[in-house]
Amino acid sequence: MTTDSFKLTIHMVMSLDGIIAKPDNSVEWFETVDIYEKGVSGQNPEDFLKTIDCYIMGSRTYEHAQELSKNYGWPYGTTPTIVLTSRNLPEKRKNVEYYNGSLNQLVNERLKTTYRNVLLAGGADLARDFIRLKLADEIRLSVLPILLGEGKLFFDHIGKENALHLKDVTAYKNGMVELWYEIKK
Amino acid sequence: MTTDSFKLTIHMVMSLDGIIAKPDNSVEWFETVDIYEKGVSGQNPEDFLKTIDCYIMGSRTYEHAQELSKNYGWPYGTTPTIVLTSRNLPEKRKNVEYYNGSLNQLVNERLKTTYRNVLLAGGADLARDFIRLKLADEIRLSVLPILLGEGKLFFDHIGKENALHLKDVTAYKNGMVELWYEIKK
Repeated sequence: MTTDSFKLTIHMVMSLDGIIAKPDNSVEWFETVDIYEKGVSGQNPEDFLKTIDCYIMGSRTYEHAQELSKNYGWPYGTTPTIVLTSRNLPEKRKNVEYYNGSLNQLVNERLKTTYRNVLLAGGADLARDFIRLKLADEIRLSVLPILLGEGKLFFDHIGKENALHLKDVTAYKNGMVELWYEIKK
Repeated sequence: MTTDSFKLTIHMVMSLDGIIAKPDNSVEWFETVDIYEKGVSGQNPEDFLKTIDCYIMGSRTYEHAQELSKNYGWPYGTTPTIVLTSRNLPEKRKNVEYYNGSLNQLVNERLKTTYRNVLLAGGADLARDFIRLKLADEIRLSVLPILLGEGKLFFDHIGKENALHLKDVTAYKNGMVELWYEIKK
């Protein structure tokens, strides 16, 4: 049985030049120091994140989150989290499971039957696969007011043209702009 | 003598995945078909363009504009236009001149003494040079609601980190979002 409404959203934080990770993986650039007077308060689409009932991510995003959790806490709380990997990962957190297989099967046989709002938290290659396979419904990009100049591009020649529908734009007091699109199918 | 206020703005239209030109240089993707109800009318920052008293661009952007002008008209009107090139270009429009030399000299000895609002209309390599040399003051990016998947990236690893200040965000009825930043120096 499929739930009434199902949505898989890709969410990424990137620099204006489209970079999601610096070559050294440092994350201090997330702490922007800009002030945009007209912006709304807060730093995250909190209300949106409250609706998420499952996170999915690649193994390197997972490992990176594990590493960061030592200083910043685990960002996904007790929400079920599925790590897509063909690697043998050494440790497993509570509420985390590993998946190795077809993305179509994952979405259609597993996610759609159980969850309503799934968020793909990274990485870029996985997001590209979901877009190519038409398995992603929406994209939320949080654009920080910085040019990084070097690093991992989020959209690195995904190879497929896809029209979008702009759903909303929100500018925050810290200079972050959130662009929210529906991926047309 | 330098004019009271001088500003050099980089202005580009790009897809959400940061692409400014498709591999075949076709431009039909500029004509988006999205509808964003909350957006403002119009398709361009018209008031801003009225303030521009000089355009600068690379030779390929110029040639591309020449080509497009056969169907769409010359986009820069009678405003003085400087084409930065070391190539021998075959034809020259009225109000257009060629410049071959140092960008620092161009800005400091030529543009700042004559103009107030200069717009760099492309291409990407030239924009990168201006950013690297700290000669650009602002960036206005018009983001169209499309993923192109392949083509020329605007910010293609510019190699230098640079903080930005968000000045304004405007979403248009056609789904285009204009992001306006000051480049911190």
